[in-house]
Amino acid sequence: MPAVPLPDLPFPPERLRPRRMGIDTGGEHVVYLLHGAPACHGEGFGPHSRLQLSVGSRRVMATLAIVQGGALAADEIGLSESVWLHLQPTTHERVSLSHPPSVESLPSVRAKLYGRTLSEAELRAIVTDIAAQRYSNIEMAAFIAGCSGDHLALDEVVALTGAMVDTGTRLRWPVPVVVDKHCVGGLPGNRTTPIVVAIATALGLTMPKTSSRAITSPAGTADTMAVLTPVDLDIERMRRTVERTGGCIVWGGAINLAPVDDTLIHIERALDIDSPGQLVASILSKKIAAGSTHVVIDMPVGPTAKVREPRQAGMLEQMLLAVAARFGLGLTVLRTDGLQPVGRGVGPALEARDVLAVMQNLPSQPLDLRERALALAAVVLETAGRAGADTSLALARECLDTGQAWRQFQAICEAQGGLRTPGLAPYRHPVVASTSGKVEGIDNRRLAQAAKLAGAPFSPLAGLTVDVRVGAPVVREQPLFTLHAQSPGEVAYAMEYVARHPDIVRIGPAP
Amino acid sequence: MPAVPLPDLPFPPERLRPRRMGIDTGGEHVVYLLHGAPACHGEGFGPHSRLQLSVGSRRVMATLAIVQGGALAADEIGLSESVWLHLQPTTHERVSLSHPPSVESLPSVRAKLYGRTLSEAELRAIVTDIAAQRYSNIEMAAFIAGCSGDHLALDEVVALTGAMVDTGTRLRWPVPVVVDKHCVGGLPGNRTTPIVVAIATALGLTMPKTSSRAITSPAGTADTMAVLTPVDLDIERMRRTVERTGGCIVWGGAINLAPVDDTLIHIERALDIDSPGQLVASILSKKIAAGSTHVVIDMPVGPTAKVREPRQAGMLEQMLLAVAARFGLGLTVLRTDGLQPVGRGVGPALEARDVLAVMQNLPSQPLDLRERALALAAVVLETAGRAGADTSLALARECLDTGQAWRQFQAICEAQGGLRTPGLAPYRHPVVASTSGKVEGIDNRRLAQAAKLAGAPFSPLAGLTVDVRVGAPVVREQPLFTLHAQSPGEVAYAMEYVARHPDIVRIGPAP
Repeated sequence: MPAVPLPDLPFPPERLRPRRMGIDTGGEHVVYLLHGAPACHGEGFGPHSRLQLSVGSRRVMATLAIVQGGALAADEIGLSESVWLHLQPTTHERVSLSHPPSVESLPSVRAKLYGRTLSEAELRAIVTDIAAQRYSNIEMAAFIAGCSGDHLALDEVVALTGAMVDTGTRLRWPVPVVVDKHCVGGLPGNRTTPIVVAIATALGLTMPKTSSRAITSPAGTADTMAVLTPVDLDIERMRRTVERTGGCIVWGGAINLAPVDDTLIHIERALDIDSPGQLVASILSKKIAAGSTHVVIDMPVGPTAKVREPRQAGMLEQMLLAVAARFGLGLTVLRTDGLQPVGRGVGPALEARDVLAVMQNLPSQPLDLRERALALAAVVLETAGRAGADTSLALARECLDTGQAWRQFQAICEAQGGLRTPGLAPYRHPVVASTSGKVEGIDNRRLAQAAKLAGAPFSPLAGLTVDVRVGAPVVREQPLFTLHAQSPGEVAYAMEYVARHPDIVRIGPAP
Repeated sequence: MPAVPLPDLPFPPERLRPRRMGIDTGGEHVVYLLHGAPACHGEGFGPHSRLQLSVGSRRVMATLAIVQGGALAADEIGLSESVWLHLQPTTHERVSLSHPPSVESLPSVRAKLYGRTLSEAELRAIVTDIAAQRYSNIEMAAFIAGCSGDHLALDEVVALTGAMVDTGTRLRWPVPVVVDKHCVGGLPGNRTTPIVVAIATALGLTMPKTSSRAITSPAGTADTMAVLTPVDLDIERMRRTVERTGGCIVWGGAINLAPVDDTLIHIERALDIDSPGQLVASILSKKIAAGSTHVVIDMPVGPTAKVREPRQAGMLEQMLLAVAARFGLGLTVLRTDGLQPVGRGVGPALEARDVLAVMQNLPSQPLDLRERALALAAVVLETAGRAGADTSLALARECLDTGQAWRQFQAICEAQGGLRTPGLAPYRHPVVASTSGKVEGIDNRRLAQAAKLAGAPFSPLAGLTVDVRVGAPVVREQPLFTLHAQSPGEVAYAMEYVARHPDIVRIGPAP
C-alpha cells in the first residue's frame, strides 16, 4: 500500500460558487451546503461542523448547515449575511473550503470550566480567537459561563481587560484629562449620562462618551440617545463633535472599541448573564480604549438592583479599583440608592423624555433623576480637578439651573446630526393597585422584565412609566405603572407577565 | 387615554404561510422571517429572538433568523427541517406566532453558574424544558458549562439522572436479571461491548444493550456496530431481537431512552466537554431507562485516558456507586489499564474489524482486546450470579474459544437486520518513526484527535491503525500508526496535526 504523497494533495479541494442567502444569523457565521454535496461527503462535514472558507486572501470560519435540496446546487455554497459581508466575493470568484485550523485556545476554555486559573497568554489567545470570529456561539457561551460567578481572579480580569483593549481601536485625545462615567446598572430609568456629559463639557471638561446598548436591561444610554440624535458615528465624526463641543454621547459599537466585548455581550444578553469579572473587564476595556484618564462609576445598591448588598458592592468596587490601577486609570465609585427606579420612564424614548425634562428644567421633571445626575457631575468635576469637594455640587447645579447644560446638550446633538423629539407609543395600559395601602417596595428586575416584554429596547417607544414611589400611599384602582407598547400583542405579553407577578409593586397596610 | 381592553386583543396576531426551507440546523429549531415583515416589526422580534409557533394544537419554540429578501414573502414563515418535522403543517394550515412563555427554569441555570446547588425540582424543570425543546443551543451550552468540573453535588446528579429517565421511554423486561456494561471511555479502540454481549447472552443472560454514538471520541459502540449491522432499531424490533437471542447491540438514540441526554451530548460534543456529574447522569439514566438491574463499568485509568489517575477514578467510582444505589441498581466498576489504545483499529470500521477477528478467533486478532473483553464478561457473569469468581473467566473463555460467542453474535446481527463486512478506506498514510529506540508512551487523546481529523466517526471507514505497543523497540522509518481516510483532504488535515504533535508516539532510547 503506497503512502499518499502529501505535497501533491489537492487541498483545499473544493471551489464552490457563492450564493448570497440573505439570512441574518445574529452574529454567528453560517454557511449552507447541499446534502450529499461532494464537499460534505469528501470532507466528512456534517451539521454543526466548523469549516474554513477562503476567497482570495480573505478567510472566515463558519458553522455548517445542510440544505435538503432545491435552494442550492451541488457546486454552490450558501453564505449567511455576515459571511457574505466578510468575504465579499465578486461574480467570478469561487469559495475554497477546508477544515479550519484547530482553535488552539479552546482547551483553555475547557480548563476554565474545570476551575483552572488562566494565564495572560491563554486569555489573550481566547480574545484573539474570538476577535477573529473563530468561536461558534456555543463555544462563546461556554467561555462566558466559565467566567461567570466569581470564577475570574484579579489577574485574569486584568489580562482579559488588556486583551480586549488590544483587539480594537484605541482613541487618544490631545488633552491631559479625559473624563468618563459609567453606571453598573440594574436600576430602571437611571439615565443620568446625557445630563452629566452636558454639565461636565459645558464647564470645560473633555468627555467623549461612548455608551452601550442594553445588555439585559430595557434600555442602554445608546438606546435612549438614539431616540434623540444619531449615535452610530464613526471615529472621524465623533472627533469633530468632541473638537467642537468638548463632548459627545455616541454608541461605542460603531467606534470598534474593544469589539470582542460587544461580541460577548451579544451572547451574554441572550443568556441574561452578567458576571463580576466580565463586567469589570467590559466596563474598563471600553474606558481604556476610549482614551479616558478619569472614570466615575455610579453603583446603585439595592435588594433588586444589579448590586444587591454592601458586601457585593465592596467586592465589585475593589475589583474595579484594582484593575483600573493596573492600567493607570483614575477611578472613583459613587454608591447610590438602588431601592427603586429613577425618574419616571423605563425604555429608550420614555427615558429620553425624562432627560429632556430635567435639562429643560420643566415643572414636570423627575427630581430624583436631577439630583442623581448632579451628584455624579459633582464627582466628575472633583475627579478632574475642575472644582473642590465643597463647591462642585453648587457649580453643577448652577450649570443646570441657568440652562447652560441644556444649551450644551443641544450643541452636542446638533454636532452629532441634529436633535429629535421623542414620540409616544400608541398602546398604553395602566397596571392599577388591587388594594389601598402604602407602597412597600418595587421589584426593579421584574419591572424591567415587564418593560422588556412590552418591547423595550427593540421597540424604542416601548417600556413603561412608573407612577408611584416607595413609601407613598395608594388607593385601590390607582395606576402603579403604565405599560407602553408599539403593538397590542406586546401589551398582552407584558400584561400576562404582570398578572403572574402581582407583587412587582408591593403594597402594604396604610401607615 | 383609554386602557387597551385586554380580552379583545388579537393575540396571537400572526397567521403565516409555512415554507419548508429544507435547512438542517443540527438540532436547534430555527425559523425565518422576511426583514420588515409585520410579524417582526409588530412583535419586536429580531435576530436571536425566541418565539413560539403553533399549528393547530402543535407547538414549538424556535430561534429567529431574518431573511433579507427574495427567499420569502412577507406573509410567509420559513421553517428549518426540525421545525417542519415537528409541526408538519398541511398545505392549507397557517402558522400562528407569539412570544414564547418565559422559560421558568433558566434562572436556575444562571444560579448554577453562580455556584448555587440546585434542588430536585429545579433540575427536573430544566430537564423538562430541554425535553420540550424550550432551550436554545447557547442556553444548553451554559447549562452544560455550569455542570462541568465538580460543580454538581451528589443529590444534583441523582436528581438529574432521575429527571432524564422520566422524560423518555423506560423499558421493562420479563426477567429478574438484566445485565449491562459501559465503558467510561478515553481509550481508543476499546471496543469490548459486542464481544461481552455475545458471551453473556450465549451463556443465557439477558443483555439488551443500547449504545451511544461517539461524544468526543473517534467511535462509539453504536458507530462501530452500525458498520456491521443496522443499529437504528425501534423498540418493537429491539424487543423481537432480545426475545429471539437474549440480547442486542442497538443505538440508544432510536429507542428514546433519556432523550435529553442525547440533546445535551450534541452540545457537549461540539464543546468537547465531558464532566463527571453529567457523565454519571448520562451513563446511569440510560441504564435505568433501559431496564437494567446489574451494570458493569469498564473504567480505564491512564495518564492520557479520560480518567487520569487513581484519585479521580476513586471519586468517579464513588459517585457511580452512590447514584446507582439510590436507584436500586447493582453496579460493579472494573478499573482497567488505560496506558495505551486497545486492539489495532481506531475508528468505526477499523474497530469492527478487530471485534470480528477476536470473535472469529483469527490468528491476527488483537490479544489485548480479547483479554479485556473476557475480563469484563467474567465480571458480568459473576454480577448476574451466572458463575462464581473462580469459574467465570474460564467459562467466558470457553464460550469464545469454541465459537459459541461468534455464532451468537451472528444470530444477534441477523435478528437486527443482517451482518455486513466492513470496508477499507481508500486513502492510507503511515506515520513513521523519526528515530530508532523504544516506544515510551502513546498519547491517547492526540491519537484519538488524529483519528477524528482523518474523518472518524462521520466517515465510518476513517481512523487509524496502531502499529506499535508501549515498550516495543522500533527502528527509524518503521510505521508507528497508519491514518485511514475517505478523502485525501482528510489525510492532509490529520497529517498537518500529526506534524505539529510529533510526540503522539513517544520514542525513547533503545533499552
